[in-house]
Amino acid sequence: MAVDVGGTKVEAALVASDGALLDGSRDRRPTGAGSTSDELAEAVRAVVAHALAALPDGDTLVGAGIGSAGPVDLVHGTVSPINLHAWRGYPLREQVAALAASVLPDAAPVTLRLDGVSLALAEHWVGATQGVDNALAITVSTGVGGGLIVNGRLLSGGTGNAGHIGQIQIADRPAGESAWAATLEVIASGPNVVAWAREQGWQGERGEDLAAGYVAGDEIAVAAVRRSANAVGEAVSSVTTLLDLDVVAIGGGFSRVSDDYLDLVRASVQEAPVNEYARRVRVVRSGLSDESPLVGAAALVWQADLLG
Amino acid sequence: MAVDVGGTKVEAALVASDGALLDGSRDRRPTGAGSTSDELAEAVRAVVAHALAALPDGDTLVGAGIGSAGPVDLVHGTVSPINLHAWRGYPLREQVAALAASVLPDAAPVTLRLDGVSLALAEHWVGATQGVDNALAITVSTGVGGGLIVNGRLLSGGTGNAGHIGQIQIADRPAGESAWAATLEVIASGPNVVAWAREQGWQGERGEDLAAGYVAGDEIAVAAVRRSANAVGEAVSSVTTLLDLDVVAIGGGFSRVSDDYLDLVRASVQEAPVNEYARRVRVVRSGLSDESPLVGAAALVWQADLLG
Repeated sequence: MAVDVGGTKVEAALVASDGALLDGSRDRRPTGAGSTSDELAEAVRAVVAHALAALPDGDTLVGAGIGSAGPVDLVHGTVSPINLHAWRGYPLREQVAALAASVLPDAAPVTLRLDGVSLALAEHWVGATQGVDNALAITVSTGVGGGLIVNGRLLSGGTGNAGHIGQIQIADRPAGESAWAATLEVIASGPNVVAWAREQGWQGERGEDLAAGYVAGDEIAVAAVRRSANAVGEAVSSVTTLLDLDVVAIGGGFSRVSDDYLDLVRASVQEAPVNEYARRVRVVRSGLSDESPLVGAAALVWQADLLG
Repeated sequence: MAVDVGGTKVEAALVASDGALLDGSRDRRPTGAGSTSDELAEAVRAVVAHALAALPDGDTLVGAGIGSAGPVDLVHGTVSPINLHAWRGYPLREQVAALAASVLPDAAPVTLRLDGVSLALAEHWVGATQGVDNALAITVSTGVGGGLIVNGRLLSGGTGNAGHIGQIQIADRPAGESAWAATLEVIASGPNVVAWAREQGWQGERGEDLAAGYVAGDEIAVAAVRRSANAVGEAVSSVTTLLDLDVVAIGGGFSRVSDDYLDLVRASVQEAPVNEYARRVRVVRSGLSDESPLVGAAALVWQADLLG
């Protein structure tokens, strides 16, 4: 059973050993910054109940995997998603374990990880980084997140929060601003790119407008998209220099703002004056679908031998 | 047997299972940018011969570890140290294996790693990060280098070059410069801090002068040291955000430029507006001595179960 807790929705489904979702098992409930803790807990209960009810007769549940928006605290099994204000130190692992207790065999794992970390495992399991020992999965969307495979294993970090690439510094500080005003997410995420374009005098309002402006050759739209992709490329170069990665898979809605977004990222990586080993990294399109948060949560069980 | 190949010297020694160098086994030969490939090979041969000759009767060599200035290429067992121009793709592992063949038992390991990576393993073996599963070792000196322990194991990366923290971007780009003019090493290493201070009108010439100026309260010297420590702190925050580290150990000559250098680094880490988990990292003084490159090379053999 896979559970995904995000800032706008909670989902659950049953996922088979090949990464396929079981028909009829997927359910979704909305969440939001205004949700109370009880409402969030009820949403989890409802989607889990729906998924478990779809377990075919004769099939056995082998475990439960939970991907959650972060930060998480694996030491205590709790989550404190930035955009779900009512949950601070919420014992999500314990709640899911209790909900599934009646159908889970004894000693079956109930595993919690950050959503970006789970996604990196999904990418390694059925996506674009299969067979790769050192890989980064990046999602460029409302925010910019990530997850890492190193030494052939998933990297969770001391408390489960490894992979937060959106919060590393890029050398692009606006005059007079703190260095932390120049993190990858601040420069490259969809809403932040739109905001930057509007500061330059652009009249659009959303990522879709930016996509249209890019195709039409609008000067500011083109500059804004390039600025985002360039920042992603610089972050990839920094992280690849630090970790000596083989492959970086890029997904997320905003990475599709232009057909050549990945080409722009690749150009940035190739132009970086770094050591040769850091330029060998392959930048590829994510091989995952919109089911990926659930596939990632399931991978925590099916690919448990890769957990760090 | 431990071998360390650096930009200014080659060393070898015998190292016991507790990390102690055997009396009389350590030897050193100078190297430099002008050395020919034959001169470098002869230096390696000489220090290895000296070390092997010190093997006490009845003692057995269990393996050879080699730490080298980078980049290295573990796929091919070669090294291309930036400051040793004559060696590009030099088969160092093969040379050391041949030199030690007569005294090495069959199947004994001959292991090559980047010097910073070896140092991180030494820090984990006998230094300041013992027992820590997610740790970074940083050396602030003529350059800025590093090495990583993640998931309780050494991180080598796809070709052996993980740990190059000196080449990640910091958000401190000088106006008009490329983003890559703002890497940690460019801002924080000893010679670069001295150069920056001189650009501000400071009259000293070396790190020692900067140390004296800092103690005397010279305004530019104080600003220069703080700028270096602050950049190290920002890099630590970026990397800790990405990798969720437990401990960062800092060593190297320039990290002793002021008594409070580590306090300045810690203040920078604490002031970073990052997620709470990234502020929990402990910044500690390296627990290693000037023997550390050799101890690190030996750790590649004695701590072989931690190799990634």
